[in-house]
Amino acid sequence: MDKIRVALLGSTGMVGQKMVLLLHKHPYFELSIVSASNENAGKKYEEAVKWIESSEIPESVAEMKLVKARAEDIKGAELVLSALPNEVAEKVELDMVREGFNVISNASPFREEKDIPLINPEVNWDHLKVLRKQRERRGWKGLLIKNPNCTAAILTLTFKPLMGLKIKQLIVTTLQSVSGAGYQGVPFMKIQDNIIPFIKNEEEKVENESRKMLGKEKNGIIEPEELIINATTTRVPVKVGHMGIVNVFTEEEVKKEEELSESIGKFKSLPQELKLPTAPKKPIYIFKEKDRPQPMLDSNLEGGMAVAVGRISSKGRTVRYVVLGNNLVRGAAGITVLTAELFKNIYENTNL
Amino acid sequence: MDKIRVALLGSTGMVGQKMVLLLHKHPYFELSIVSASNENAGKKYEEAVKWIESSEIPESVAEMKLVKARAEDIKGAELVLSALPNEVAEKVELDMVREGFNVISNASPFREEKDIPLINPEVNWDHLKVLRKQRERRGWKGLLIKNPNCTAAILTLTFKPLMGLKIKQLIVTTLQSVSGAGYQGVPFMKIQDNIIPFIKNEEEKVENESRKMLGKEKNGIIEPEELIINATTTRVPVKVGHMGIVNVFTEEEVKKEEELSESIGKFKSLPQELKLPTAPKKPIYIFKEKDRPQPMLDSNLEGGMAVAVGRISSKGRTVRYVVLGNNLVRGAAGITVLTAELFKNIYENTNL
Amino acid sequence: MDKIRVALLGSTGMVGQKMVLLLHKHPYFELSIVSASNENAGKKYEEAVKWIESSEIPESVAEMKLVKARAEDIKGAELVLSALPNEVAEKVELDMVREGFNVISNASPFREEKDIPLINPEVNWDHLKVLRKQRERRGWKGLLIKNPNCTAAILTLTFKPLMGLKIKQLIVTTLQSVSGAGYQGVPFMKIQDNIIPFIKNEEEKVENESRKMLGKEKNGIIEPEELIINATTTRVPVKVGHMGIVNVFTEEEVKKEEELSESIGKFKSLPQELKLPTAPKKPIYIFKEKDRPQPMLDSNLEGGMAVAVGRISSKGRTVRYVVLGNNLVRGAAGITVLTAELFKNIYENTNL
Amino acid sequence: MDKIRVALLGSTGMVGQKMVLLLHKHPYFELSIVSASNENAGKKYEEAVKWIESSEIPESVAEMKLVKARAEDIKGAELVLSALPNEVAEKVELDMVREGFNVISNASPFREEKDIPLINPEVNWDHLKVLRKQRERRGWKGLLIKNPNCTAAILTLTFKPLMGLKIKQLIVTTLQSVSGAGYQGVPFMKIQDNIIPFIKNEEEKVENESRKMLGKEKNGIIEPEELIINATTTRVPVKVGHMGIVNVFTEEEVKKEEELSESIGKFKSLPQELKLPTAPKKPIYIFKEKDRPQPMLDSNLEGGMAVAVGRISSKGRTVRYVVLGNNLVRGAAGITVLTAELFKNIYENTNL
Repeated sequence: MDKIRVALLGSTGMVGQKMVLLLHKHPYFELSIVSASNENAGKKYEEAVKWIESSEIPESVAEMKLVKARAEDIKGAELVLSALPNEVAEKVELDMVREGFNVISNASPFREEKDIPLINPEVNWDHLKVLRKQRERRGWKGLLIKNPNCTAAILTLTFKPLMGLKIKQLIVTTLQSVSGAGYQGVPFMKIQDNIIPFIKNEEEKVENESRKMLGKEKNGIIEPEELIINATTTRVPVKVGHMGIVNVFTEEEVKKEEELSESIGKFKSLPQELKLPTAPKKPIYIFKEKDRPQPMLDSNLEGGMAVAVGRISSKGRTVRYVVLGNNLVRGAAGITVLTAELFKNIYENTNL
Repeated sequence: MDKIRVALLGSTGMVGQKMVLLLHKHPYFELSIVSASNENAGKKYEEAVKWIESSEIPESVAEMKLVKARAEDIKGAELVLSALPNEVAEKVELDMVREGFNVISNASPFREEKDIPLINPEVNWDHLKVLRKQRERRGWKGLLIKNPNCTAAILTLTFKPLMGLKIKQLIVTTLQSVSGAGYQGVPFMKIQDNIIPFIKNEEEKVENESRKMLGKEKNGIIEPEELIINATTTRVPVKVGHMGIVNVFTEEEVKKEEELSESIGKFKSLPQELKLPTAPKKPIYIFKEKDRPQPMLDSNLEGGMAVAVGRISSKGRTVRYVVLGNNLVRGAAGITVLTAELFKNIYENTNL
Repeated sequence: MDKIRVALLGSTGMVGQKMVLLLHKHPYFELSIVSASNENAGKKYEEAVKWIESSEIPESVAEMKLVKARAEDIKGAELVLSALPNEVAEKVELDMVREGFNVISNASPFREEKDIPLINPEVNWDHLKVLRKQRERRGWKGLLIKNPNCTAAILTLTFKPLMGLKIKQLIVTTLQSVSGAGYQGVPFMKIQDNIIPFIKNEEEKVENESRKMLGKEKNGIIEPEELIINATTTRVPVKVGHMGIVNVFTEEEVKKEEELSESIGKFKSLPQELKLPTAPKKPIYIFKEKDRPQPMLDSNLEGGMAVAVGRISSKGRTVRYVVLGNNLVRGAAGITVLTAELFKNIYENTNL
Repeated sequence: MDKIRVALLGSTGMVGQKMVLLLHKHPYFELSIVSASNENAGKKYEEAVKWIESSEIPESVAEMKLVKARAEDIKGAELVLSALPNEVAEKVELDMVREGFNVISNASPFREEKDIPLINPEVNWDHLKVLRKQRERRGWKGLLIKNPNCTAAILTLTFKPLMGLKIKQLIVTTLQSVSGAGYQGVPFMKIQDNIIPFIKNEEEKVENESRKMLGKEKNGIIEPEELIINATTTRVPVKVGHMGIVNVFTEEEVKKEEELSESIGKFKSLPQELKLPTAPKKPIYIFKEKDRPQPMLDSNLEGGMAVAVGRISSKGRTVRYVVLGNNLVRGAAGITVLTAELFKNIYENTNL
């Protein structure tokens, strides 16, 4: 089989670097175009990138010439993955979709549009169905698929297996790492030895995007789940790994803790059935040790694609647990590649 | 007026050092005896202490000779303040109370006993009433007063003015600083760039002690408030300052945010009326800025005796806010000295 | 006496904030004009500043209206102090000096010019002499005085009392805090849990500026000291305080360590004699404890104007010691205010 | 070939864990006995260990039963590797050597004894020669080989290729990570946002052990190199990686920087020739980028067995460079395993 030629937008950033590694030697994608900011366009990848990953830059990528993020510069790409910064993503991605490219994007614009799927593969792979009408409704030549906010990606992976509990309300407090704001995002002077109990627009994203992902597709439109989510998001002096402390209010008495642990820990979905290359074998790992999960120890389960859950307890109609996920992988680079794999398998191959 | 001679137990630790500073030049206390661990007894204070405060060791204290924490070594003390570690506190404090000393203590043993007052002065100064029967019930010659866990001290200061809302349930997530575990308590290798989502016994303390402090005195016994509190306590890589994210569920629709801010921000109590030397003029400061409070900027309001509240919002029957307090001052050294002031004023001077 | 009206350029930055505090209630200066970047000009000081000091914004300053850093906007100022960023300082300061303002500046442009004094008051107050010819040589209406790089300021305070040893060579390794790069200067992701063994242009500044400050004035020109200095400068994850490890090679056998400690510790100079308000009583504090000085404990001696020296040892013709100074105070805000005090006393009042 | 049965002393500590990983699937060693402190003896390895490595505990080791560190408990071991804490190492290792075990140890006792080889394989593999007379001189049944202090191990790897320069004096300042003091070694409260410019006994170890390793074997005795080394060692808030800033004074004019880089970067020795399993292919990596090496980016070259060198410059008779090495691998676990490989190859197989 010939590999699918992928263009990667925003390839030199922290998330872009992780995507480069995930696409390197991928069984059915081939990274053939890499874009960067205008001032870096024209340079070799290895010259422009400030590489921070512990494994080396793949040789084949090191020598590639960076292009600008414009439709005319990615001719020949069969699929576009975007790790663009939010500020520039809207225009660029729209142009490309109009020109006929299929774009799968991590950036925030369009995430709340009802006919644009917001995919966390294990949670709502079936939302890809809206794509069947997207083109005609929008008059686009290509398709646009979005991935969620990193925190919403991590959280919904645990919300999904709880949906059987008849949840009334979710109280979530997050402790989010600095990499979530980008490599340059937070000065050392501002966050070391400190906590900032606010992240701009984050609480709205967590609440709204989670509801959308847990919702149902109907006539080419996603109807969000009716669920009260109260999120408080904080920034803590940790490099990688977003933690959520979740309190779940249910309509009925909840099961015993052991049953709960088991049913959450057993959660699997289509990506696992299809054995998609980037899918974790087990999306959720349960820790019995009381002092886990910890970002330092538990952010890289299955290469960062699985999340860790601990401290599960239930009292009457309340369930409490702690979840930790890798914001750069499960929350960004990995979720996009996994979505691309899903898209190729179920949208193109089957008739969905 | 002659000053009251105070013995300070555990005077060389982090909390002990803060008490030394609070008692130095105190209008009505005189620090006259300082105790330390057995291996340091006999040494001068300045030789034994690893002083970490930014102001100097008060000269009068620097030269004092450390004694062991035993009743026979503190003869002449009219009041005993204890910053002893929990492991040794139980036996030492009990011995002293039996010998006739009045002890006000920060250590955890006895905190949940119904006839031993657990005092956060602004919240439950009236619980000192149980002392009238404590001596006879226990057969002690002296009296024992406890101060709460540092997190419970900070939180209850904000729970108190909310009690008018008919609270059904409180969901609290804390982000606690490393100093709360003592100077040697957490190795750098364990907590830097990390979060530990568990602190031993802390959640029970926060829940039970808060209920006790919010409860009512009746016939020499404290009856705890019936209130569901679900606490999740985490350790974060910050030196000083404990933060709580609080979600309050009320029986009735809650007021508008501005009114809420105002009524919380106006909270005052007996220590303010009596103008006790260590009492903050304003116990609670409200921040309107969305990114506050922050440990780095807001842990030292009124010398660390006032707490900071921000991010107040209400939605239907839920109120959310963030509170920050200085765990070493409001949560430990300062609360004990303030309780001593309260005790001297209302228990001894009035007839309560 | 009427106070001297001072304009402060770059008043909202980290160094600017410290200057505001130093000038507030100053015995002979009055802060009457504050400038900021163009986008903040026109706003009130308290609205534009991201205040990070632990003491409050002085009320009188909070309400002041910020102006642009232009000669026409600081009319009426009798003295100009500059905490401008290096990039904009050159043009602005030159314009002001040409217009007749006397400017004392922390920024790096012009520091190596031979007829522009580079003042670390205790070290080379007598270099102000070059001002007598500066105006005529340059054709300026005003005068320009520079303060050194923060590391050079801290180091030279200890080099000066060693000059009697007939020094041949100085090997210096520095461990510099992040505040030295400005509040936004270094991202958390780059420096936490890391060391960067390079700071742009810093080694040249340390070497050249130190030689200039230790040099001699001759006919309106500073002739630098002939001295080999080999500096290696590193950035470490510490907020405030620059440390230097100094190895001194001398031509003659060096004295015993005790004598050395004593002679360094006794160092005083004209600012101490004149009792200038910002001058530390003792510029250098000697620590005998082997594990000192430490940034956390020793960066605020005399409000940050004195430096700490420890680990003095000598072996044959080599002396080793560790020096620590507050880069924001001794290295920036404080040195400029102290220089202003010096200038007012010896240049204007005496005939130098 | 049957594998050699190895007993690992101190197997549960940070260094012990790294050795477990290095010995797992080793081509000619088999980890067959693991010891721990007395309170953990009898437990399974996985129960007693606080595992902090990112890869899993090897299954075969997880189930092993821990023994006490006593000669009678390690019967059957053909080689003993020791990662014991310094306090207990002396007695235990001496007992074992007397009982006939060959011990290769990381602990500090005996390191300065002239007839006990202190091995950094690439630097002084030939010092193993002293073993021929060690047994008879000491009256031991077994042999004792030591590995150096972690900092000395890293530094000497770069001193060795410089010895051709006729070095007169070395001035070294180190910035050492917290893991060097052990997992529990330094409290967060003491070192975060701080530098401690002193590490007990470290400077003597760096100076004396380096001289011994650079010395020559003569009649079963090591004669240390006559070389003045002035070390100042500091502790910085970094987890892993020790950095040294080295200034080398030579008797003759030094070569150009490029030549220097090349000759250092080309350094290879017997472990590379023999292709020992744990030997790095290239012991020293040269960085041209001015801001390298950095602990975060460069501590794991060749699994932590190679060191990184940057900022090489020369001026007259002085060479300056920065070296960084992994203190847990090159400085501890890896050097011991490499020494064991060396010992098996050249002492046992050849006649040395």
